[in-house]
This record gives sequence, C-alpha cells and structure tokens, in this order.
Amino acid sequence: MTTIKKKVLSDIEIAQQSTLLPIVDIAKKIGLTEDDVELYGKYKGKISFESIHKLKDHSEGKLILVTSINPTPAGEGKSTVTVGLGDALNRLNKETIIAMREPSLGPTMGIKGGATGGGYSQVLPMEDINLHFTGDIHAISTANNALAALVDNHIHQGNELNIDQRRVVWKRSIDMNDRSLRQIIVGLGGPVQGVPREDGFDISVASEIMAVLCLSQSIGELRKRLGQMVVAYNRIKQPVTVEDLGVEGALTLLLKDALKPNLVQTIEHSPALIHGGPFANIAHGCNSVMATKTALKLADYVVTESGFGADLGAEKFLNIKARAAGKSPDAVVLVATIRALKMHGGQSKEDLQIENLPALEKGLSNLKKHMETLEQFNVPFVIAINKFRADSDHEIHALIKWCENQNKKVSLTDVWAKGGEGGVDLAQKVLEEIEGNKKEFSPLYELSDSLQVKIETIAKKVYGASGVEYTVKARKQLEEFETRGWGVLPICMAKTQYSLSDDPAKLGRPENFTITIRELKPKIGAGFIVALTGEVMTMPGLPKKPAAFGMDVDEDGRAIGLF
Amino acid sequence: MTTIKKKVLSDIEIAQQSTLLPIVDIAKKIGLTEDDVELYGKYKGKISFESIHKLKDHSEGKLILVTSINPTPAGEGKSTVTVGLGDALNRLNKETIIAMREPSLGPTMGIKGGATGGGYSQVLPMEDINLHFTGDIHAISTANNALAALVDNHIHQGNELNIDQRRVVWKRSIDMNDRSLRQIIVGLGGPVQGVPREDGFDISVASEIMAVLCLSQSIGELRKRLGQMVVAYNRIKQPVTVEDLGVEGALTLLLKDALKPNLVQTIEHSPALIHGGPFANIAHGCNSVMATKTALKLADYVVTESGFGADLGAEKFLNIKARAAGKSPDAVVLVATIRALKMHGGQSKEDLQIENLPALEKGLSNLKKHMETLEQFNVPFVIAINKFRADSDHEIHALIKWCENQNKKVSLTDVWAKGGEGGVDLAQKVLEEIEGNKKEFSPLYELSDSLQVKIETIAKKVYGASGVEYTVKARKQLEEFETRGWGVLPICMAKTQYSLSDDPAKLGRPENFTITIRELKPKIGAGFIVALTGEVMTMPGLPKKPAAFGMDVDEDGRAIGLF
Repeated sequence: MTTIKKKVLSDIEIAQQSTLLPIVDIAKKIGLTEDDVELYGKYKGKISFESIHKLKDHSEGKLILVTSINPTPAGEGKSTVTVGLGDALNRLNKETIIAMREPSLGPTMGIKGGATGGGYSQVLPMEDINLHFTGDIHAISTANNALAALVDNHIHQGNELNIDQRRVVWKRSIDMNDRSLRQIIVGLGGPVQGVPREDGFDISVASEIMAVLCLSQSIGELRKRLGQMVVAYNRIKQPVTVEDLGVEGALTLLLKDALKPNLVQTIEHSPALIHGGPFANIAHGCNSVMATKTALKLADYVVTESGFGADLGAEKFLNIKARAAGKSPDAVVLVATIRALKMHGGQSKEDLQIENLPALEKGLSNLKKHMETLEQFNVPFVIAINKFRADSDHEIHALIKWCENQNKKVSLTDVWAKGGEGGVDLAQKVLEEIEGNKKEFSPLYELSDSLQVKIETIAKKVYGASGVEYTVKARKQLEEFETRGWGVLPICMAKTQYSLSDDPAKLGRPENFTITIRELKPKIGAGFIVALTGEVMTMPGLPKKPAAFGMDVDEDGRAIGLF
Repeated sequence: MTTIKKKVLSDIEIAQQSTLLPIVDIAKKIGLTEDDVELYGKYKGKISFESIHKLKDHSEGKLILVTSINPTPAGEGKSTVTVGLGDALNRLNKETIIAMREPSLGPTMGIKGGATGGGYSQVLPMEDINLHFTGDIHAISTANNALAALVDNHIHQGNELNIDQRRVVWKRSIDMNDRSLRQIIVGLGGPVQGVPREDGFDISVASEIMAVLCLSQSIGELRKRLGQMVVAYNRIKQPVTVEDLGVEGALTLLLKDALKPNLVQTIEHSPALIHGGPFANIAHGCNSVMATKTALKLADYVVTESGFGADLGAEKFLNIKARAAGKSPDAVVLVATIRALKMHGGQSKEDLQIENLPALEKGLSNLKKHMETLEQFNVPFVIAINKFRADSDHEIHALIKWCENQNKKVSLTDVWAKGGEGGVDLAQKVLEEIEGNKKEFSPLYELSDSLQVKIETIAKKVYGASGVEYTVKARKQLEEFETRGWGVLPICMAKTQYSLSDDPAKLGRPENFTITIRELKPKIGAGFIVALTGEVMTMPGLPKKPAAFGMDVDEDGRAIGLF
C-alpha cells in the first residue's frame, strides 16, 4: 500500500489556482454600484470620493482589531488570521469587510514578508497587491520627493525662508530596500547643481506622508495635514512647514487617487479594503482611517489589524488611530503561535518542530503581558492560536488550558490550511465577546498629559518598564516641543518589535528594565511625536540572496517567484 | 455697442469641459471587446497581452510620422498637430489611431511642457495622463532602482563579479526635476551602510529601461534586452550586465504591466495609444513599438510623433525605431510655426507678435534643411503650418507661397482652436501623398557601417556639419566598442535640440561647423550607442517659481492648476 502525501502548495500557487470574481460583483455585495468603483483591471478597484460622500449618514458596524504577541522569526500569521476571520464571519452570514494594510514593494525584492495573508486565507490578486498594486505607494514616493526637490530648489534659488541646510529634516524616499541610500551627500558638482548637504532616503512607507494619508478622512484634511509637516528649521531654529513653502496643494493633487480605498477580495470572495501601510515603529502601523471608516459604513463587521505586536501596533491603534478616527475596536483578537511562544521561552529557531512544554510555558509570559495591556485599555478580547503543522497535541492542549485558567476565551484556528472554515470557532467567540461586552474603552493617557507623562505611561503600562531615561538631547527636545505647542499630540514610540523592552534580544517578558529615549521627531502633519528608543531602521537593506533572483514572468504576464 | 470678446480657455478648462466616452466604447470602435481592455478607471485602459497576441495575423495600416523644425521657446505644437490630424482623419471616415508618448511627471511640477496636445486637440483625461497615468513610469523607476540596489548590494555582500565600484555606470532614477540629485555620494556611514561611491540620479524617462521598454515587442524580448544592459565594469574593465547579476526576470516582472499599451481618447473621441516616452537626446524619443504596432493592426491609419526636431526625433525614428519595428512611415508631416521660423530668423521672443517678413524668410533656412533631410530618407512629406493667433496674413501667405515654390505640399492647420476640423486639409494632403507615393524608404546608413561612419553620416547629412571631431576619450571608445562587437548597433546622437549644430545658440541653418563627440555610452539593452556632443542634461532642475505653486485639487478630486 502506498500513501499519497498531499503536496503542500505555496501561497502563490494557491493564489493562482483560485478563481476571482469581477470586483464589480464584490462591490455589489456591499451595496456599491458599478459607478462607485474606479477599476484597476478586472479585480481591483478604488472607491470613488462621490460614493464615500454618499455614505455620510450610514450607521457604523462593529470593529474587530487583530494584534499579536511580540513577533519572532517563527511567524505569527496575524494577516492570515485577519483574512481567515473575515471569511469565517461571512460564512456565518455576518456581512464583513476586511481592512488591511497594503504591502511595500521594496521588501518583496528582498526577504519576502508578505502582507496579503497566506495559504487559503489570502487577499487576491496577491501578485498585484505585492507589486505596484494601484500605485498608492508610488504616489506617496512622488509627493515625498516632489517636496524634497522643492525644498532644495528653494534653498538653491535664494532661500527666502532662510532655511538652514544643515537642518533640513525632510528626507527623500523610495519603495526599495537600498542601504546605500541611507546616508548620502546631495548637491555636489558646483553652483548650478544645487547646495551640497547631507541627506538620506527612507523607504517610502516610513515617509510622514504615508502616515498623513492614513489618518486623513477627506481631501481637505489631507491638505491641512500635509501643510503642517515640518521640513526644516531656519537659521533662528524655527520650524519651516510645507505651508510656508506653499506647496500643500500640489502634494494633495499628487495624492488625490492614493487617498481612495482599494477594494479587492479574499480567496473566498470576501470584500477587502487594502489601503495604506505606514511603518509600525516610526509611524502608527495601521491601514487608513479612510478605508476603515468606509468599511464600517458598508458592513456590519470590519476586521482590521495593526502592525507588529500589541505593545507597538495595538497601543498605537488605541492611543492614536482610534482617537483620529473617533472609533475604537468592539473586540480585539490577540494572535499567538506555539512556535513563537516557544521562542519566547528560549527554544531556538532550529528546534521549533520539537515538542517543548517547558519552553511553551515559559514563553506564555509574553502573551500574558499583552493580555494585561489590553485589559488596561478596557477592550474585550479573544486569544487566537494560529495552528502550525508541527504543533503537538500536548502543546495545543497545554496552551488552551492555560488560557482557560486565565478565564479568557481562546480559539484554535486553522485558517492557513482551511480558509474561513478554520476560523469559524474564533468568529463565534469574537461575536460572543462583542455581544456580551459592557466595557467602555479608555485610552491609556489623555492628550492634555505632557509628552513626558505620555512616554512614561506607555513604557510602564505597556512595556512593563520600571522607568524611562532620556538623553540630554531628548530632554531638551521635550521642553522645546512643549514650548512650541506640540505637547498636546500623542506619542508614537519607535521601539524594536522583537521585545517588550528596547533590547531586541530580551524575549519573553523582561523585567526590571528601563527604556531610553534618544531623540524625539515631530510629525506634526501626522499628528504625533515620534520617540526614538534604540536604533530604528527606516531603510532596510537587501540580503545576500535577494528574493529578486527567483522572480520572473511568463509571456502572458503571470508572475513567477513571488511567495 | 459693446463687443463681446470670447474668452480664450486654458487647456485644462477645455479638457474639463469635454465629455468623455467610457473607454470600453472607444475600444469597441477599434474592434476590441471589453475583455481585451484592463481598465484603469472609466477612461483609461491597458490592452491585454492576450488580445495583442490575437492580432498577430492582422494586416497593418499606414503609418504617419509627425516631426518639426528645431524647437524654439515660441512653441511648435507638434503634439497638438498629431492629435488634430488624427481627429481630422477620423472626420474623413478613415479609421485612425493616434500613438503618442506619455509625459513625464517631473517636468509637470516645474515648467509645464505638456505632451497631451493643446486647445481642442488634446488627449484625455489630461490630468491623469500628466500625473501618474497608469503607473508606467513609476514601474520604470522601480525597476531602475531595484537594479541599482541589487548592484550595490552585490558589491556590499562580497562582490563576486569583481565590480569596480568606480566604474558602476548604472545610475538611479526618479521622475522628478531634482538638480540636487545629479551628483551625489552614496553608501556613507560605515561598513553596514554599503560601499561609498559617486553616483547620481537621472530623470526616469532617461533610464535605459524606458528605451528598452519602448523597443520591446514581447515579454521575451523585454527580458532579453534588460539582460543585455551594461551596469558596470569589473576590475579587468570587462562589462558586467544584468544577466551576469541574474535579475533580468525580476526586472521583467516589475515591468509586465508597463509593457501593455494605454488606450485613451481625444476630445473628439478618437482612440489614442499613449505609451512610453524616452528622452529624445540620450535615447530615441519615440513612443513604444508595442503601441505603434498594435495600433497599426487595429486601424487603417496611425499618427505618431517623434521628439524634438527632425534632426533628432525623426532621424532616430527612421534609423533606430523603424528598424526595430520593421516598419517605416508611409508619410511624414513636418510642423513649422511662423513664430518659431521668425525666431530662427533672428526675431526676439518678446517681438513675436509683430509682423516680420524678413525674419520669417531668413528662418525658412531651418525648415529647408529638415525638408532636405526627409528627402534623403526618401519618405513623402507634407508641411503643416500650425496657426497661432498673432500670425499675420502676409506672413501666412508668404510661407505658403515659399512652400509651393519648393514644389511641396503645405497645409495651414488650425487644430488648437478648431480640433479635427482645423486639420482636415492637412489630412487630405497627407492621404494624397500616401496614395501617390512611389518612393522607397531608405535609412541613412547600414548597420554594418562602422560607428564612426554612422556618426559622420548623421552629422553631415542631417545636421549639415562639415566634419566631426572626437575627444581622446571618444576616439578610444570607438575602437573599444568595435572590439567588443558593439559596432553593429545604430547610433543615438545626444545633441541640443535647439540647433542643427551642437551649439544651442546657433539658430536657423548654421554652416561651416563641426560636431564634437565627447563620449560614447553603450546602451546594449536598448540596442544603440549614445554619442554625446555638448552637455546633455539627464536630470532637469526646477525653476524659481515651479508650476507646483499653483496646483491643487478640489474635494471631489478634480485637478486645479495643470495647464
């Protein structure tokens, strides 16, 4: 007797074997007409401003936020759970839209992370979404670099605003992993080639414009936020803004289509709005308010996610985005995997397929901390165990039992292998939580708190730090920013995603540590103050063997080597 | 009695007052079905590879090339005549498609040139076409910069190919006018930030990838040409190509949609393929072969244009593109304006509205040279006088008479003010030329000629130079390139567009001058050798008051301040 082993298909194989519905059919499902959708090919569309204006008086559905424990190289599958949960809710006949971030192309050419889910819980067409999609990020790069060119041109053409070229803070950007552009000198070659100065490129999703776009609810708000961005300081150290340059209109024009949410579908034909994707360290790491709010008006349930673990993504969702959007989640899903918990408990990456109950138990401290954090925000939540093949029954049983002992709802999900079917139990538990919820959401700090109080609240309550230290520079900036009137803005922490602390090597639940704030960066257009802890990479590099080596396309334009 | 003066509308006002047909209706006019077109909104579409494959056995229509005298700041309106002639042919019930270049966004933010025609002879939606359009140029920038990052990553990660970082010839690119990026130093900041070296950005349309895309007729040809591009030289001065790096597949993948021609319409609903737009000095300056060939299979007549004057654009169309496409023009239209001819005759820009018959007569020498050039290629042509408001009746009469004395067909066109109606006479004369044509097109040189013979043929026969001088470097390169086997490629001259000579100040028809070849650049993917004469700008700068200052967008996403 021979056993036939089922071949495990790759994400792109599953995606390419799937049958898509025309996107206009998906639009009709959620009450939009053909005229409401601006098509980008047959399977992608942007929702027009006109149709969004028409939704003004619609009531809003329930919002479900997916977050996770601190990420490890083992993978958590937060996007996969987000997609699977949306599909599951639709299987239960709950009208649901998935609202996710759009991936950056740069990392696709390097080590592919993928933000389109995986297995049978993916959004499609994955090739397009992972490459140029509808051009949103290209528009952001263009607006970013138009502004950079306009700043340098201003200095070159006479510098009426008296900009100090040593204090230009607006960097150029590109959607590429390109370490050689991190630190550069521009304007070389003599007087007709501009004014020499030090500069650098960030990856486009780290541009403040990405954050601004994701927090704007109208063309008017977009223009206003763009105008407030600080690009440089003048010779008397006063900030110079986009409005001072007078180019906020031009930047808005370049972004007019990028502001419209993108409609696509999952493998199971659930509607998905994939729109905006700011970094989750240097920025707030959530999809656009425009997409989330539009989805809430069009569906009874909206499943969305935030970047990295709950200490970064969910904290920023709850303290920054929820405030900007005027909407907090009705329930949160906290994703954990047995593999990742074992890594937090000291298991090495190579041994993850080996059962290790003590490591699992030790790693639970990480999960526990994030549960405590969500409780402080007073939001109901369900723990989702995202199943991997190597998880042993003993491990699964131990984890479920632990959660139940904590008196917490937990669901074993298998959405990678089974699509929505694998998330039905999770969906039911989330619905129960929403039904029975009597809690009232409260952000962790008030906007009227000082910047220092905000930083210390996050560090102590979310990270579990014993205290916060400041460099001399950061301390001076705290004072300066309060004087400039920026103290009323929320804080956006830039911290490693791998640890609750600011040291990426400290897994699990570190204790007795302090957080060091090295520097603050004003993102006045985005409407937050970035507080930098350790080194934060805003321009990734390519690995020794970039994923690009395996990529190609056949004569009909079908992608090869995306995964 | 009051006289009511009719307000002269701007291009964008005329465009926004026009009613567009859904692009699927335009597609149907030329025999395409809804499924053949990948929509980008309601009014733009890309023609799918599948539908292009289906056209394989269709017969080809007649090709009409629009070129002009040497451009002056007075404007010639070549694109406007191209659009108007297409509309006029359709008015005469000749099935006609217009095949033009797509504009670069960078210059739109600086001093707007506009490549979408003007007045009532425009392609629409002009706002979209002048901004991000369907993302082709963004895809080109991305592929260009992915390659740059991969080259620097190769050097950083061990440099197996032994690339000499002082001899990396592949530059980065951006679709922006940004002089500060012309000469830069990258890779600063220590060992983890890459290898420091001198570098620079070109505007994206000057990237070899733009030329490659425009000369490729299939995914396979695109991949092959991309693979042949030279990116650097190694330590033993041998060329390193994209194939050596092994990333031609990834670049092709990034360009798969950009290779598909874009379908739009004119104000009068004529179909137009707007696709590709390489520089007309550092590259060959024509729209894509893919679009031209597709248009020829779909229509009886195709009107296309080449960049700058006939000395650059038409020469390259006829010696480079016609060879690559296997199709030469059935007729040429040579555009002149009275304003520009007067400038060639010494009239200053400020006095152009003043009648000046002697200046006009003197300036005719420029037109005369281009007529002689076209005769050498043995192509039939018609002279189009593109009417401007200030042209006096005397001037118009004198110009027409001069052309008739030369025994040349001439037509006074008024397509800016009247659309296709203003070009009907031109259309009829072009049709007569095509009908009566017994000439057989011949390129000016054979591919088997040496590079030096090719250069000297162009300089003498097209520019009217008495001879060619070479720098020591260029002379060495001529020898080197022949040794490498590159001598069989055509020459792409990089020369100022303002003069027949290599000195932009010499208007009219300069005589007794030599052309100096400073340097050669191998563009093996594009399939030509660039010969640089004077300084050629591959990265424009912004003016003191950039057009961006006047741009904005209203709450419904309608553009303001494009013109």
